[in-house]
Amino acid sequence: MGKPVIGIVMGSDSDLSVMKDAAVVLGKLGLSYEMVIISAHRTPERAEEYARTASERGIKVIIAGAGKAAHLAGVLAAYTPLPIIGIPILTSSLGGADSLYSMVQMPSGVPVAVVALNGAKNAGILAAQMIGTGDLEVRTRIAKYKEDMKAEVNKKSTRLEEIGYDAYLKEIK
Amino acid sequence: MGKPVIGIVMGSDSDLSVMKDAAVVLGKLGLSYEMVIISAHRTPERAEEYARTASERGIKVIIAGAGKAAHLAGVLAAYTPLPIIGIPILTSSLGGADSLYSMVQMPSGVPVAVVALNGAKNAGILAAQMIGTGDLEVRTRIAKYKEDMKAEVNKKSTRLEEIGYDAYLKEIK
Amino acid sequence: MGKPVIGIVMGSDSDLSVMKDAAVVLGKLGLSYEMVIISAHRTPERAEEYARTASERGIKVIIAGAGKAAHLAGVLAAYTPLPIIGIPILTSSLGGADSLYSMVQMPSGVPVAVVALNGAKNAGILAAQMIGTGDLEVRTRIAKYKEDMKAEVNKKSTRLEEIGYDAYLKEIK
Amino acid sequence: MGKPVIGIVMGSDSDLSVMKDAAVVLGKLGLSYEMVIISAHRTPERAEEYARTASERGIKVIIAGAGKAAHLAGVLAAYTPLPIIGIPILTSSLGGADSLYSMVQMPSGVPVAVVALNGAKNAGILAAQMIGTGDLEVRTRIAKYKEDMKAEVNKKSTRLEEIGYDAYLKEIK
Amino acid sequence: MGKPVIGIVMGSDSDLSVMKDAAVVLGKLGLSYEMVIISAHRTPERAEEYARTASERGIKVIIAGAGKAAHLAGVLAAYTPLPIIGIPILTSSLGGADSLYSMVQMPSGVPVAVVALNGAKNAGILAAQMIGTGDLEVRTRIAKYKEDMKAEVNKKSTRLEEIGYDAYLKEIK
Amino acid sequence: MGKPVIGIVMGSDSDLSVMKDAAVVLGKLGLSYEMVIISAHRTPERAEEYARTASERGIKVIIAGAGKAAHLAGVLAAYTPLPIIGIPILTSSLGGADSLYSMVQMPSGVPVAVVALNGAKNAGILAAQMIGTGDLEVRTRIAKYKEDMKAEVNKKSTRLEEIGYDAYLKEIK
Amino acid sequence: MGKPVIGIVMGSDSDLSVMKDAAVVLGKLGLSYEMVIISAHRTPERAEEYARTASERGIKVIIAGAGKAAHLAGVLAAYTPLPIIGIPILTSSLGGADSLYSMVQMPSGVPVAVVALNGAKNAGILAAQMIGTGDLEVRTRIAKYKEDMKAEVNKKSTRLEEIGYDAYLKEIK
Amino acid sequence: MGKPVIGIVMGSDSDLSVMKDAAVVLGKLGLSYEMVIISAHRTPERAEEYARTASERGIKVIIAGAGKAAHLAGVLAAYTPLPIIGIPILTSSLGGADSLYSMVQMPSGVPVAVVALNGAKNAGILAAQMIGTGDLEVRTRIAKYKEDMKAEVNKKSTRLEEIGYDAYLKEIK
Repeated sequence: MGKPVIGIVMGSDSDLSVMKDAAVVLGKLGLSYEMVIISAHRTPERAEEYARTASERGIKVIIAGAGKAAHLAGVLAAYTPLPIIGIPILTSSLGGADSLYSMVQMPSGVPVAVVALNGAKNAGILAAQMIGTGDLEVRTRIAKYKEDMKAEVNKKSTRLEEIGYDAYLKEIK
Repeated sequence: MGKPVIGIVMGSDSDLSVMKDAAVVLGKLGLSYEMVIISAHRTPERAEEYARTASERGIKVIIAGAGKAAHLAGVLAAYTPLPIIGIPILTSSLGGADSLYSMVQMPSGVPVAVVALNGAKNAGILAAQMIGTGDLEVRTRIAKYKEDMKAEVNKKSTRLEEIGYDAYLKEIK
Repeated sequence: MGKPVIGIVMGSDSDLSVMKDAAVVLGKLGLSYEMVIISAHRTPERAEEYARTASERGIKVIIAGAGKAAHLAGVLAAYTPLPIIGIPILTSSLGGADSLYSMVQMPSGVPVAVVALNGAKNAGILAAQMIGTGDLEVRTRIAKYKEDMKAEVNKKSTRLEEIGYDAYLKEIK
Repeated sequence: MGKPVIGIVMGSDSDLSVMKDAAVVLGKLGLSYEMVIISAHRTPERAEEYARTASERGIKVIIAGAGKAAHLAGVLAAYTPLPIIGIPILTSSLGGADSLYSMVQMPSGVPVAVVALNGAKNAGILAAQMIGTGDLEVRTRIAKYKEDMKAEVNKKSTRLEEIGYDAYLKEIK
Repeated sequence: MGKPVIGIVMGSDSDLSVMKDAAVVLGKLGLSYEMVIISAHRTPERAEEYARTASERGIKVIIAGAGKAAHLAGVLAAYTPLPIIGIPILTSSLGGADSLYSMVQMPSGVPVAVVALNGAKNAGILAAQMIGTGDLEVRTRIAKYKEDMKAEVNKKSTRLEEIGYDAYLKEIK
Repeated sequence: MGKPVIGIVMGSDSDLSVMKDAAVVLGKLGLSYEMVIISAHRTPERAEEYARTASERGIKVIIAGAGKAAHLAGVLAAYTPLPIIGIPILTSSLGGADSLYSMVQMPSGVPVAVVALNGAKNAGILAAQMIGTGDLEVRTRIAKYKEDMKAEVNKKSTRLEEIGYDAYLKEIK
Repeated sequence: MGKPVIGIVMGSDSDLSVMKDAAVVLGKLGLSYEMVIISAHRTPERAEEYARTASERGIKVIIAGAGKAAHLAGVLAAYTPLPIIGIPILTSSLGGADSLYSMVQMPSGVPVAVVALNGAKNAGILAAQMIGTGDLEVRTRIAKYKEDMKAEVNKKSTRLEEIGYDAYLKEIK
Repeated sequence: MGKPVIGIVMGSDSDLSVMKDAAVVLGKLGLSYEMVIISAHRTPERAEEYARTASERGIKVIIAGAGKAAHLAGVLAAYTPLPIIGIPILTSSLGGADSLYSMVQMPSGVPVAVVALNGAKNAGILAAQMIGTGDLEVRTRIAKYKEDMKAEVNKKSTRLEEIGYDAYLKEIK
């Protein structure tokens, strides 16, 4: 798909089954990406080097996913003027509040754009929206994507109204 | 400053003393903005109309601040392909968790880019970073802004190391 | 059952297995309803149109269920003078606090009547109680419903007292 | 204002400064009310008697406010088929989560319609909306009330756009 | 075992598998009990009657278990001078905080003695300790019970020190 | 007042302004007490010695108040068969959840009877109720105390109904 | 491995499957340990005796794991000048917040060094780091351990970049 | 006091009034320290350089204090084999849970030793305890420090027992 414009970074390969949703939606929206595993705490030099060189390598947005004391997005944000999207990964403790708070409560001067817990798909869409601020073609694709979602919801509602909840529940089981 | 490229929207004028920080930093980064009060629940038609026409009016990013059941950012996101930045406003109840969760836990397909509680300054910087994905001049200004912050922190540390904590605490009181 | 007086709206068909409990209890209480899928964020125009026309179509109460950043009830409330009952849907993150706070912490002027997490049955009963403020026949049916519940609890207690906890636990397994 | 149709009940006179907002808005919406102090735990017999006789005395909706282990609304709901609106009172502990959870997590069969922490004004509006299910005149007054709110927000936004945030902040101080 | 001195009350038979632990430990400590199902909201009259007559029927302590908006212990406490022990039942929402806060945050004047989430065994021991304030024989049995627990923990530790963690983990699997 | 039957223990003299409410109500209920400062962490030997000798010195119930990682009640409970009442002290962090959870979530076998955050008055009443299980005179005093509370609430309600909320609010200011 | 320098203490053998990770990593780092079961509440004398004699027996750091009202670490800290590392054990209630708060919120003067929920491996590493403050050989081993972790993360990232997320997910399943 | 063995690092000079307590107690325990301001996000290169060179400069323990998304301790831990003590700074949002979770929930392999919210004094003591693992003189000073605390608590208790709570409260006001 050409040189990547979006970097997808995750703190551990245990996050991959969530993070791949960002890749999938970026593929649908026609945006090229790269995907790497970098730990803010176990490979800090790579985190620094990745963020510091991202802009010159053509990356325009970085998506970072991590769980628990989720410092990855903040650490990347420290080294680059590019926007960083943070995906707090839901874990088995504290209902995910640890991942969320660690990402979103960034100090003044160094923002991270946080989406929902495990919200990798939305991170992909948001990355596209950011690119879309300077690229009308991408913005149009997003508008189209939203229309498709709308049609899908409406189709489901029509089906429910036609066959009632008992039949519908059987159908989607 | 020319036609606004960023819309700053707040749910109530009680949020203004927080939200103005976004305007201030955008001013420093040389980006024009407009600022309006729109309530998702009290003026829903204006919310819709604002979001629906934002792109054609030249707006590239919308910053929305609201508290408690903070639906404003999500409602705007429903009507536009532009990126929406959400600022959860800290209130006196639930430690601000209500504002934060209402903004960040958006459903699949409709992201909001959430910053810290009362993080209006960071919302402004993030908006600039988004514009910067397509505008190298803005990206450069952000890099400069980060350098200035760095210098300021270092200056403070040097002062603390010179005079010790007792004298420093008196100085900043 | 005649023209619907109660609208049951849900944000996604994944909420249907919870939301159907509202329909079941309304059926028992002899009140007609309609059931639709409307997403506040993916189909905002339908949300607006549904709420705006509900009163003139004969709807007297709207029950809305949604999870996470649960804006649906608030968005409907923005467009109608009818009472809105919100059912926060329990999800796997944050113990459901996100759904609950997003629904209940509505700003001054636009209330939502919130029931328990996944409390669809209670939403149905509450809708009937609201209708009952102007319809003594419905109020009587609710009083009868409460008497039946009471008898059922008492019957269980008697059985437990008769056979002891070991036998009772085997019986209900 | 004629025989009361709405009962406003609070657990302690320390809740009165919050609870009076319900009375004020009911006054504006032309609905008569009575206001009493009843503690679920200190005056349980009065709680029972109040709820049991409310319907026959002409009460159509009961608004109950209480804090901490806020059982009042649930206790009233146990004794009447009328709808009960619960106002969780914000206290100094647990961010108000105790008051909220104690009210909203009612068991199956006995709903309470919960509004925001300290949301007495919204409780009054919701009570009117409930009456409005059977009284078109009241429903019309609510629609009018919503229009007035809308105008007020729009007026504020216009003023902010005219004079800018610095001047506006001075004006509202 | 003679006339019951302790009443074990639960809000629903779904709590029985937890609540039976109170009965088991009371049996071990030689204290007689009765066990009933009473819902504060579905059978409020029985709750009142049970609490009001408990003292004269020879009951000295009441143990009450309930979940979510757990009003049962508070409602019983309202009608009797006897001590009430509350067991907050852990449910699937809010990590159990709803059950806990609803029970423990009682208003001034009407205490409930709350034990851990699902802490039925401890509720039984605590009831015995209360009886023990006026009955040295019971206090001695509790002291003996504590000695047995101590011996059991020490035996486990000795075993672990002897065989190491790998063998121990296999043994207890 | 004779030899103390109730021990009031606090972890720090900063808790005294809360803890004294236990002493006040015990005085009203005619029960003698002693009051000491013992820190579970700073004076562990005294904690042990206090608990171990309490029963033989005539103490029948121990009330323990502590904040944050509030181990005091649990540490005392480890060394005595007497019932321990825990008062979680509200501090400025975590809404008091730290104090509450540290006290209430005791392991199987060693209960603490927890009252509300800062609930020292209720701890005193609960201690009296425990003594009352073996002392009908004390139980009667508690019943009388409850009647007095009831009268006080009713008097306030009557006053509110007479003069209305505006006058009442002025009166209690 | 010679005389133990680190004590691993747990409140119950149900914590062993978590706690053994501390032993495993200490083994890798060449540090000898002992492992015992001591309950702060069921065997308080052993807790005291263990902590009081640890220093003279050659123990330099104590690792303590416990859940819910997790007093073990604090109780040990009360009796020894040695550093105590606390591992809050994740249980099924309150998302683990009870275990965490009970351990970390220690009063002034008696610290516990708390690691993540179920963070037994990190407790082992931290114990080694503490020993490393006075033992350069151990510090070097830790530096080596960190290098190995780094290499492992980098190897995984390289593999992901080579084969893509679909193939990688199959490989690690 | 000689070459510093302990580094005290804070993310912002707004943390200084809390962080100075670590310095004060280290002074009392006869340990030399240095104190600097380093932001993980605004001066990331200095954070890296500080941690990377700390060991060779003679630093044996690093104490790091930060608030909100408190990454500082984790970022330092990534670059050094020295033990890192984290002090979560209490802020006005989320009751401090953001600072605490961001620090304590570190991933496997890279521990941070976390003390209480604003627990700078305990961080100082803990640092001394860590040094004490290899330095018996320091360990003895800590034991002495604990004895002094004990005496102080006992003195307060004696005073309270002598003069009663009313007089004592006046005395400490």
